Amino acid sequence: MALSNIKRIAISTGGGDAPGLNAVIRAAVLAALNRGWECYGIRDGYTGLLLPEQYVEGGMMRLTRDRVRGITHLGGTIIGTTNRNNPTQYPITDKDGNISYIDRTDELVRSFMLHHIDALVTVGGDGSLAIANVLAQKGLRVVGVPKTIDNDLDRTVVTFGFDTAVAFATECLDRLHSTAASHGRVMVVEVMGRYAGWIAVNAGVAGSADVILIPEIPYNLQNVIAKIKEREEHGYNFTIVIVAEGAKPQGGDVTVKAKSVGQAERLGGVGEKVAADLQELTGKETRVVVLGHLLRGGSPTSQDRLIALRFGAAAVRALEEGQSGIMIALDPPNVNYVPLEEVAGRMRAVPLDCDTMMTARDLGICFGD
Amino acid sequence: MALSNIKRIAISTGGGDAPGLNAVIRAAVLAALNRGWECYGIRDGYTGLLLPEQYVEGGMMRLTRDRVRGITHLGGTIIGTTNRNNPTQYPITDKDGNISYIDRTDELVRSFMLHHIDALVTVGGDGSLAIANVLAQKGLRVVGVPKTIDNDLDRTVVTFGFDTAVAFATECLDRLHSTAASHGRVMVVEVMGRYAGWIAVNAGVAGSADVILIPEIPYNLQNVIAKIKEREEHGYNFTIVIVAEGAKPQGGDVTVKAKSVGQAERLGGVGEKVAADLQELTGKETRVVVLGHLLRGGSPTSQDRLIALRFGAAAVRALEEGQSGIMIALDPPNVNYVPLEEVAGRMRAVPLDCDTMMTARDLGICFGD
Amino acid sequence: MALSNIKRIAISTGGGDAPGLNAVIRAAVLAALNRGWECYGIRDGYTGLLLPEQYVEGGMMRLTRDRVRGITHLGGTIIGTTNRNNPTQYPITDKDGNISYIDRTDELVRSFMLHHIDALVTVGGDGSLAIANVLAQKGLRVVGVPKTIDNDLDRTVVTFGFDTAVAFATECLDRLHSTAASHGRVMVVEVMGRYAGWIAVNAGVAGSADVILIPEIPYNLQNVIAKIKEREEHGYNFTIVIVAEGAKPQGGDVTVKAKSVGQAERLGGVGEKVAADLQELTGKETRVVVLGHLLRGGSPTSQDRLIALRFGAAAVRALEEGQSGIMIALDPPNVNYVPLEEVAGRMRAVPLDCDTMMTARDLGICFGD
Amino acid sequence: MALSNIKRIAISTGGGDAPGLNAVIRAAVLAALNRGWECYGIRDGYTGLLLPEQYVEGGMMRLTRDRVRGITHLGGTIIGTTNRNNPTQYPITDKDGNISYIDRTDELVRSFMLHHIDALVTVGGDGSLAIANVLAQKGLRVVGVPKTIDNDLDRTVVTFGFDTAVAFATECLDRLHSTAASHGRVMVVEVMGRYAGWIAVNAGVAGSADVILIPEIPYNLQNVIAKIKEREEHGYNFTIVIVAEGAKPQGGDVTVKAKSVGQAERLGGVGEKVAADLQELTGKETRVVVLGHLLRGGSPTSQDRLIALRFGAAAVRALEEGQSGIMIALDPPNVNYVPLEEVAGRMRAVPLDCDTMMTARDLGICFGD
Repeated sequence: MALSNIKRIAISTGGGDAPGLNAVIRAAVLAALNRGWECYGIRDGYTGLLLPEQYVEGGMMRLTRDRVRGITHLGGTIIGTTNRNNPTQYPITDKDGNISYIDRTDELVRSFMLHHIDALVTVGGDGSLAIANVLAQKGLRVVGVPKTIDNDLDRTVVTFGFDTAVAFATECLDRLHSTAASHGRVMVVEVMGRYAGWIAVNAGVAGSADVILIPEIPYNLQNVIAKIKEREEHGYNFTIVIVAEGAKPQGGDVTVKAKSVGQAERLGGVGEKVAADLQELTGKETRVVVLGHLLRGGSPTSQDRLIALRFGAAAVRALEEGQSGIMIALDPPNVNYVPLEEVAGRMRAVPLDCDTMMTARDLGICFGD
Repeated sequence: MALSNIKRIAISTGGGDAPGLNAVIRAAVLAALNRGWECYGIRDGYTGLLLPEQYVEGGMMRLTRDRVRGITHLGGTIIGTTNRNNPTQYPITDKDGNISYIDRTDELVRSFMLHHIDALVTVGGDGSLAIANVLAQKGLRVVGVPKTIDNDLDRTVVTFGFDTAVAFATECLDRLHSTAASHGRVMVVEVMGRYAGWIAVNAGVAGSADVILIPEIPYNLQNVIAKIKEREEHGYNFTIVIVAEGAKPQGGDVTVKAKSVGQAERLGGVGEKVAADLQELTGKETRVVVLGHLLRGGSPTSQDRLIALRFGAAAVRALEEGQSGIMIALDPPNVNYVPLEEVAGRMRAVPLDCDTMMTARDLGICFGD
Repeated sequence: MALSNIKRIAISTGGGDAPGLNAVIRAAVLAALNRGWECYGIRDGYTGLLLPEQYVEGGMMRLTRDRVRGITHLGGTIIGTTNRNNPTQYPITDKDGNISYIDRTDELVRSFMLHHIDALVTVGGDGSLAIANVLAQKGLRVVGVPKTIDNDLDRTVVTFGFDTAVAFATECLDRLHSTAASHGRVMVVEVMGRYAGWIAVNAGVAGSADVILIPEIPYNLQNVIAKIKEREEHGYNFTIVIVAEGAKPQGGDVTVKAKSVGQAERLGGVGEKVAADLQELTGKETRVVVLGHLLRGGSPTSQDRLIALRFGAAAVRALEEGQSGIMIALDPPNVNYVPLEEVAGRMRAVPLDCDTMMTARDLGICFGD
Repeated sequence: MALSNIKRIAISTGGGDAPGLNAVIRAAVLAALNRGWECYGIRDGYTGLLLPEQYVEGGMMRLTRDRVRGITHLGGTIIGTTNRNNPTQYPITDKDGNISYIDRTDELVRSFMLHHIDALVTVGGDGSLAIANVLAQKGLRVVGVPKTIDNDLDRTVVTFGFDTAVAFATECLDRLHSTAASHGRVMVVEVMGRYAGWIAVNAGVAGSADVILIPEIPYNLQNVIAKIKEREEHGYNFTIVIVAEGAKPQGGDVTVKAKSVGQAERLGGVGEKVAADLQELTGKETRVVVLGHLLRGGSPTSQDRLIALRFGAAAVRALEEGQSGIMIALDPPNVNYVPLEEVAGRMRAVPLDCDTMMTARDLGICFGD
């Protein structure tokens, strides 16, 4: 196609780990190679271009057919990712140890030109997509691929990594059921979800949780306690609570005791607070399990592999069509394009009247409200 | 709600097994009990009402909170299912062993009334939904829940059981990769999909198949052979072929040799034919694996649990709203209602220009065309 | 066989949950039924006999072929288990709320006679087997089946539940690898193992941990820090540490800071201490994951199903042979009998010179010594 | 240690794929590197040395710490394996297309010397171990690591790959249960096991099969039919049959019909015969699933990873101790050495009176005898 004139592209992955990153890379690389383009991976976000001297073999990795073989199902990313070295606010430490921040995006755009990179496919979350927007406005041809395990990015119905996280959290709930039942316990499971409760709601419904606490619905512990009591009256001596890390109590809720424990708060978050309070207030043996770090890794589910592969291929197709400054999004069953400038800083909460929430209510699940 | 006046509902599951049936049942039962309704399960499709004398404990099973506890993740259906005893064409054998068919639907509708069943939630495929339509037209209040692992029902984007089937088929492809590679083999994997290639396409893309053969695209084996040769030139001495059971060769294709093997055809289907032909024509060691029966069972994925739970709860909500003669459908991210009479006999093929197909082409996958 | 004269047996499960309990029950029940014996399950340890009034349907559950169908792969136990209501030290609360303990074992033995129970198969850990020994000495025919996920019971090479726990802990380590790598973190994973490090050693080796801390080897954090530094020099910016909950530092080790955090200690144990200290001392971002409660539940692996089924059947065979006061043990590939009085209070640590430990050392794994 | 004087070793993997090969390689490489030895992998069995011109990058792959990182859980083998190019009977095709066989072992031993390889760790089955024995007798320092998914190698209680195969076959039986039940079918599952029924027995017991047919016990189909009938009388309208590929009928058994179908026999083997006969003789709908090729691949279970890692490390330890001409074997809980000349051509059948078989009988499982 005359539109693109692309001969060489680069791929970068930024921010935290997510199952499916390698599948995005493989699809983008094969789609590019099959168009006769060359492909390079930038090491560790943009670090390969900003600090090339760190890499013995260079900060750009040639991505061949062989290099991307057999990686679809592997966790992690073969080109590396990082939360550091943000080119829009690059940290500089002076001789007194003071840190200041400089903008290295112009330098970065020049670096792409020097390497004869015609376009960039960048995979990342809210922050990475904002950087991509800056690069696009400075003239780099850029297509973004959204990445968020929390599923809270606006303008795309779902992203890769989310299904894997929900599947694993659901399996963990399954495991806790028999243990909670045989020990007559309250089990509190904390999952990711700082701004939105997608994982908690989906895993909670799929894994038969009794209580789901999410950022979208400030909870009153008294309602949770009422649910525990109601279950005891039905003959069930145990209760499973799933709580998103961003869940918050209603105005004057009873969390004084756990709040006083500085260290626990730092390490354990809302899950530990809820567990400590419930044990204090109900007298029931209560345990907490924090799944956070386990939800980012692992082999992607077939569903996440598909989304990731589709996103990677779509990014190359978009470049071929002459697109730039856009993000690939899922609007089932199709993929479409969203301007990057409409994405930044917007967050997608769980709609309280969506079908999954109605299902949860029909199942008798308590949201603490 | 005044609309419904429902006090007691029944649930039935018909046709083949599918992962998620128990989740539909659990959600429908809890949603009904939480509305103050009673719930009964009809044993084995409609057999519990048509042949009640077969059941020591009666053909209707009272469904309580306890009965549906802990079943979301279990395969099968606690109320039984069957392909037999179709009430619209009920088989009668006379004393000479001749079989004739009678319509027992009027009797069935009366039987519901005698049991004071105000409404029916019935879960099933194309055939079961057609029966549901007849019952609805005869005055029974009926809501259908679609069930098809092949994913080929029209008017719903996806149904429960499909994700579980794709996940397992993908895992099987993963397993075959290293074996195919170390033995330098062609591996042919046959999956379900008589009329549509949904499982083959989704598992094939997610599981890195090299060739995908589906009913929607008549294949020419010469193109498959060319792909095998191309891979050898790239240094890959093995090839993975996934084939839907309904895949068909183009007009005058080379399948003469395998066609002559009557028994193999009956037992193995298109997978064995393709494998035998490829071995004959390429001289490469070729093996076939038929996954069919393994794809129907097992514990549903979290995704399928969610869809099934949502469908079960939505069916009860639809009854409460006064609906009848409709099927629950998924129009992501929402659930909606489709008239049963618009469903029957219609089939949904994989659109050849859908995003997943474009991704497959971008990845270099061969469809035999 | 003349030796046994058994017509009716009972089964009980005591202590914490373990994957495989239902498989033991199924095998014992089928083995008994196939010998023409009747089978009953005592609810919740011995509670069904000690507090029968708690159970609407009675404290003894008739165990039929139907009741044990399809339960081999289910977590939990269909007859219930508990850590409470120990008949050798049964808690009595007087009107002032003071608790005293009485011996109800004589009453329990009489209760078995009143129910015409000829023999008992009891599944449990150290405590339950000690109770079984008392009952046997008071004349009840008893065969014990060992249960310990920690794998620390003496006289049996392995018990059911252990393989499932190791498999899940290994899967969690797999998940953490890519995340630890992409974030350049130290990840500390705490697993069960109060007195012995079996799970930590086996999962640590299988899941490629870099450091394993176990009760058998008091650790010096400086050695762990040296390992983290050594890895950085090899170019690996992350480290995976697995720690058994009973791991202890050497005499004067550096854990002062975390020790001062009362609440964290109560909730998180040694894993949080190690994580806090490592972050403090290395400056590296460090995270902790506590797997404890997740390791007790879930569907048993095929290996654990086999051990559990073999133990259940062997218990019935032992009763048929006239045995009593013994525990079933695994001495691969055979099952044998061990006198209950030789079991109580003895613990099996990981031998520091066993082959798995030598393998760990050969792989370069650090034990903190 | 003075005994060994080893500076450089090679590793080869021969025969079919097995889950755990990469774990053996990783453990052997790390154990060798940690002793200051160099490590090379021979490509594709001995092909890297016999046909080095086939490999652009050479037939020997330097194995570094980086090369073996993160491979423990991957199926396949990073150095390749093959059933071809046996150096004791190397095939030579003359200009007329006639094949003759020559002995290239002397040349192979010289080739090791030319590459300054001091010792070889070779992983393989019966055939590969016989080759290893020849090389050892010709003066090469060799330690063998046994590999057989069928678990039929004599002198070792178990080998890696077997647990993974049993786990997957068990999962498949789980999947088939609900489908068989809802369709009222007989399901026949064929698994590997040409000479011994280890997989069939272990998966059959763990997966609740009703009938297990193995090479060790010639079956009479009439007994299988009696079992199917007995189950129907108990109210179970379906039956699960697991059959090892080497199972054989008793002298004059009824298999005439299926025997006449040449092609089916080649493709499907005993599973299809048994299924066809059972359908013919019982009139029940019968289906067959052949798992063979699925059992060789996939990610190894934690149990298999452990055995494989222990074997790899033990091989290097044996070399350090000056051993040669021996095979590593498992004598739980220890690893020991067995002279290679005692291994060749000996096969280990399932002992008919072993504890697992007794358990199977206690569970009422039918063996067709």
